[in-house]
Amino acid sequence: MSHNTFGHLFRVTTFGESHGVALGCVVDGCPPGIPVTAADIQAELDRRKPGQSRFTTQRREPDQVRILSGVFSDDRTGDRQLTTGTPIALEIENTDQRSKDYSEIRDSYRPGHADYAYDAKYGIRDYRGGGRSSARETAARVAAGAIARRVLPEGVTIRAALVQMGPHAVDRSRWDWDEVANNPFFCPDATMAAFYETYLDGIRKDGSSIGAVIEVVADGVPPGLGAPIYGKLDADLAAAMMSINAVKGVEIGDGFASAALRGEDNADEMRSGNAGAPTFLANHAGGVLGGISTGQPIVCRFAVKPTSSILTPRMSVTRDNRDVNLVTRGRHDPCVGIRAVPVAEAMMACVLADHYLRHRGQVGERG
Amino acid sequence: MSHNTFGHLFRVTTFGESHGVALGCVVDGCPPGIPVTAADIQAELDRRKPGQSRFTTQRREPDQVRILSGVFSDDRTGDRQLTTGTPIALEIENTDQRSKDYSEIRDSYRPGHADYAYDAKYGIRDYRGGGRSSARETAARVAAGAIARRVLPEGVTIRAALVQMGPHAVDRSRWDWDEVANNPFFCPDATMAAFYETYLDGIRKDGSSIGAVIEVVADGVPPGLGAPIYGKLDADLAAAMMSINAVKGVEIGDGFASAALRGEDNADEMRSGNAGAPTFLANHAGGVLGGISTGQPIVCRFAVKPTSSILTPRMSVTRDNRDVNLVTRGRHDPCVGIRAVPVAEAMMACVLADHYLRHRGQVGERG
Amino acid sequence: MSHNTFGHLFRVTTFGESHGVALGCVVDGCPPGIPVTAADIQAELDRRKPGQSRFTTQRREPDQVRILSGVFSDDRTGDRQLTTGTPIALEIENTDQRSKDYSEIRDSYRPGHADYAYDAKYGIRDYRGGGRSSARETAARVAAGAIARRVLPEGVTIRAALVQMGPHAVDRSRWDWDEVANNPFFCPDATMAAFYETYLDGIRKDGSSIGAVIEVVADGVPPGLGAPIYGKLDADLAAAMMSINAVKGVEIGDGFASAALRGEDNADEMRSGNAGAPTFLANHAGGVLGGISTGQPIVCRFAVKPTSSILTPRMSVTRDNRDVNLVTRGRHDPCVGIRAVPVAEAMMACVLADHYLRHRGQVGERG
Amino acid sequence: MSHNTFGHLFRVTTFGESHGVALGCVVDGCPPGIPVTAADIQAELDRRKPGQSRFTTQRREPDQVRILSGVFSDDRTGDRQLTTGTPIALEIENTDQRSKDYSEIRDSYRPGHADYAYDAKYGIRDYRGGGRSSARETAARVAAGAIARRVLPEGVTIRAALVQMGPHAVDRSRWDWDEVANNPFFCPDATMAAFYETYLDGIRKDGSSIGAVIEVVADGVPPGLGAPIYGKLDADLAAAMMSINAVKGVEIGDGFASAALRGEDNADEMRSGNAGAPTFLANHAGGVLGGISTGQPIVCRFAVKPTSSILTPRMSVTRDNRDVNLVTRGRHDPCVGIRAVPVAEAMMACVLADHYLRHRGQVGERG
Repeated sequence: MSHNTFGHLFRVTTFGESHGVALGCVVDGCPPGIPVTAADIQAELDRRKPGQSRFTTQRREPDQVRILSGVFSDDRTGDRQLTTGTPIALEIENTDQRSKDYSEIRDSYRPGHADYAYDAKYGIRDYRGGGRSSARETAARVAAGAIARRVLPEGVTIRAALVQMGPHAVDRSRWDWDEVANNPFFCPDATMAAFYETYLDGIRKDGSSIGAVIEVVADGVPPGLGAPIYGKLDADLAAAMMSINAVKGVEIGDGFASAALRGEDNADEMRSGNAGAPTFLANHAGGVLGGISTGQPIVCRFAVKPTSSILTPRMSVTRDNRDVNLVTRGRHDPCVGIRAVPVAEAMMACVLADHYLRHRGQVGERG
Repeated sequence: MSHNTFGHLFRVTTFGESHGVALGCVVDGCPPGIPVTAADIQAELDRRKPGQSRFTTQRREPDQVRILSGVFSDDRTGDRQLTTGTPIALEIENTDQRSKDYSEIRDSYRPGHADYAYDAKYGIRDYRGGGRSSARETAARVAAGAIARRVLPEGVTIRAALVQMGPHAVDRSRWDWDEVANNPFFCPDATMAAFYETYLDGIRKDGSSIGAVIEVVADGVPPGLGAPIYGKLDADLAAAMMSINAVKGVEIGDGFASAALRGEDNADEMRSGNAGAPTFLANHAGGVLGGISTGQPIVCRFAVKPTSSILTPRMSVTRDNRDVNLVTRGRHDPCVGIRAVPVAEAMMACVLADHYLRHRGQVGERG
Repeated sequence: MSHNTFGHLFRVTTFGESHGVALGCVVDGCPPGIPVTAADIQAELDRRKPGQSRFTTQRREPDQVRILSGVFSDDRTGDRQLTTGTPIALEIENTDQRSKDYSEIRDSYRPGHADYAYDAKYGIRDYRGGGRSSARETAARVAAGAIARRVLPEGVTIRAALVQMGPHAVDRSRWDWDEVANNPFFCPDATMAAFYETYLDGIRKDGSSIGAVIEVVADGVPPGLGAPIYGKLDADLAAAMMSINAVKGVEIGDGFASAALRGEDNADEMRSGNAGAPTFLANHAGGVLGGISTGQPIVCRFAVKPTSSILTPRMSVTRDNRDVNLVTRGRHDPCVGIRAVPVAEAMMACVLADHYLRHRGQVGERG
Repeated sequence: MSHNTFGHLFRVTTFGESHGVALGCVVDGCPPGIPVTAADIQAELDRRKPGQSRFTTQRREPDQVRILSGVFSDDRTGDRQLTTGTPIALEIENTDQRSKDYSEIRDSYRPGHADYAYDAKYGIRDYRGGGRSSARETAARVAAGAIARRVLPEGVTIRAALVQMGPHAVDRSRWDWDEVANNPFFCPDATMAAFYETYLDGIRKDGSSIGAVIEVVADGVPPGLGAPIYGKLDADLAAAMMSINAVKGVEIGDGFASAALRGEDNADEMRSGNAGAPTFLANHAGGVLGGISTGQPIVCRFAVKPTSSILTPRMSVTRDNRDVNLVTRGRHDPCVGIRAVPVAEAMMACVLADHYLRHRGQVGERG
């Protein structure tokens, strides 16, 4: 939406810096009566948690979530903890905040990071670990996404995977969703995952980093979610994904490839289907036409740039405009795209939950 | 933002269907004292107007804009017509509405169009010419964009160009902004423009259509526009561009190419510059870091799918779920991406104007 | 909401000045399939129209509404004109714009009017007839309200009445809703209406004006509309009524009188009722508790100050800060509260329609 | 705004129930570089804190605030703790939560409370201490208000006072702002404060409660804040005050009394003043005309109903619709209006801060 809030009816406001006291979010507008426990949310957070393999940052962030409000365990409802329809506040304390030595980035702008941009905007910035611009904020998104998933109607499945690392894309003929949990890259192609292991080790040892492409797919989304013009489902998805740290491009369905297509090859043909709805014979559209879901799988991909923090010295300037050469030491992800996978699912869930409620508001239960 | 409104402080609400009485928009939150005349707006509309070459639809839509409110010509201010700070309503009457024969699309869903999605959502749809999902709505955006340009500080230049048609991209070494006005494709590469002429003629004669990629660049944007997380400048740009009809992908700076880059190659290095601000040695970031402008040119690209209305019969279904083969007759753009060029500029202008006011609100005149 | 838009899901954006080309509104988020014709809207507008008695301004404003978009008449649905779920734009051309002589208010600030405030804010103002601050804008609200009424579930009745003019309040024991249509004051007390006739004639002949209190009641509103804290139904009603021209106070239920009550006298007791819901034994709360409707009638009252345009000379200053004595000539309402009655109904309808959709969004059809 | 968020540029989202883990708020959009410490906020909270006299609830709520994010203490800025422009999260743990015995209100609806309304809306409710509808939520508002005050330009003073208890209004000729801190009622009239002491003791001993009227005044507000129509300053104030627990009416300036006035007596006359701005000779308008501040003191009053929790048995029903007689035991404020005084100041501060930023956004530093 704006500022640090996204969503319209299912609204998430996040707060917190990398090295502040705590980060978290307020989820407002959640329907009542939905079972939500800290353990449910923790399970999602644990997927995103760093330090789970040598391919993600070695910071230890236990990321323990605490629910501050908005749920209630009532003996009248069998003691299950349910949402009450009021704001759900989630808090994650920051624990591993080695704040000691930030003198270098305090006074210099790390290339590729938002350091200069924040200073240019605000004239002040919490430089510790990137402050508000740190990818740590995405923990709050994942927590909110865990709730969003439960808001969606049964039958909606949201899954994401890493489909390209550097120039190396997965082979879609080998795509296996079950494989995603079997390797540290969330990669659906076991062969390519094995290759990534060697590949990323090389990059890591070089003190370098590499970009990636993530694909997120929502199956079982009913047709009719979205709205014309600026309420388009794909416009909201584009904003949601682009708002993730380091994302530089977003596409729906065939995306940029559709620029090279002719009309005959792009428009998804239909045949009469069961239950009165058409069966689509292809899904170039990625499940969205005119900004509204068609009932096909919603397919969204986004590009993540390489981590800007690398060990090769880079030219930069100081706050007082002096030249400097900078090495960004510290514990960093060689491929920050990996940890964007659970974040992608969370953002898809939040966008869909919001549109699900918006659609129900305008059109009613039986759109 | 949501529904049919975009922007937060500079807010544009559009209305109107392809074959309704009129379309237009309300621009709310515009600063006062800005010179705006119908002629200024008309000049922008005329760039988008169809029927200007054989490569765009032959519909005649004079697209005459009328200002209904929000401006005032005061002899105290030398009779110039200025914005008053109150809502500016713009109206474009629909004139060439050959509504006679829509029986075919009334009952059948055109593949690639939003026909089925609208019916699934609303249960009713103005099927004439695509109704609300028609690209005619973009006329209202161009009109709003003409005002947005005047809101931006002096020195901001917004220009767009078609940089790829089908698989054929321009040669960037031949890029010449002046060339854009010299060919019917808004193409900055004269050689490629000549090629497109032949190429698109072939596609047009086949009764087919083709996709395209548009690039929009804003020069002179001050650093500091944007906001963290969901108020990110690039997230809003992504939503704005994705909300244009037929757009399937958006990228900023290096975009999807950055997935293949290593950290050393991606982060834009800096040297001390004049006026206390760093000079960037490259612009892989496309002028946005952490969601905030850096002062570098803002570079955004998006992919437009081929027009779905083609003369080759396509398989489809009727409203009552019977199989049908469909040819979309009528006057259509063989490459709808061409007319998206002025729309891209308008959306960039609206997003920047909104963020300019938002930044001024939060941080003050001297950010 | 903000700026010139109100509502969250049922959103109304109004535009237009007293003497501009046209005024109107865009109603966004309206559910599809609702029968709306220009004649329906016109009927509401005619109730507000000036010049219907000697007690309202003698300006002739035919206030003919035109629907520009968002409705569709489909032979598949029996040719009824229905909303499509897309933005409904309504336009009322300004016709009786005697713009000739505004030299006096062009340069001087009329006491009690917004002239100085607008200049202080914007530095420019359309001074003709009050510009944007003219009560003419309320025509757009009435038009939107006509649609909002149709959005509400069957059984909701919204009625307003003038309950006090100057110090003279109606006798509630004589309250008869049918009487409201029988006198030019929308007064539910026939005896008092007869008195007002003489009373207001005196004020009118003095070249003076007088304040009033309006009461608006919504019967049949289901329990559960509203939301905690800043989404409170009564907070939105307060904003909606206070946003009407010349309104200086709003109250719900017992309102200010509740300050003088003891706890025993204020809280509405309950007994078990039919259909599983409690029967309330009183309605001090005016149908809203904790910001949420209780199923009781929603009762809202507001105070309208006397028209500031009077024939007695008043002390004022010019734009360039010179003392001046001012008489506001022209055709004015001696009691502007009278014409606020249909506006009150419209605002109540818009607020309830918005909350009805919001509730349905969060909680579903069967809350 | 909506849901649990208010404000547009200066946005406050509150969360938390009476007996949950914690309550608090996220303040988003705050300008950077503003000194804010927990001690500053605590000072405001302590004014609202219960248990400070025998006239407020004897619950012990230490209401210790913790700043979780959005501020930074930088040795480059002399170690002062400043806002960074990113979301400021404030948290107050709930400590005195005697949750043991809520069996009575778990199953029965307390008259005058939101119990039934919440159940009707959500079908579930945290019944402990009123849950989300508890006045405890106003602690979060006071915390946010402490920040809002610092956002406003120097010279703005916001003060509130209790001006009526039961039928007993203060004598305005004895008004002394300094007196407000000298009695437990925030009463500006020492004589009346002495009377209230006896009066409220009587009501308290009866196990009853009483209503009140609060007046909040903002001096030094620059002209030009506010916006036409639904962005009116007084409409936002009305919503803000009405959103406070137990408030049933709001008025600006003369408010309801203006209904009885004639035009000559109501419109504030002007004479040429210093600094090019008019001097107003009266302030019937309460500092707002056409929804925009005039530079005069902004005067707002609201009525607070008597606490609904009293010791006299009241008729009610249970959740399963059986008749019951109910006494609301516990520690309650005999006049909940008293503690609304600091809340009123906070809401005024939040509304003004938001409009100050909005105005600066649209019109610039030098409107």
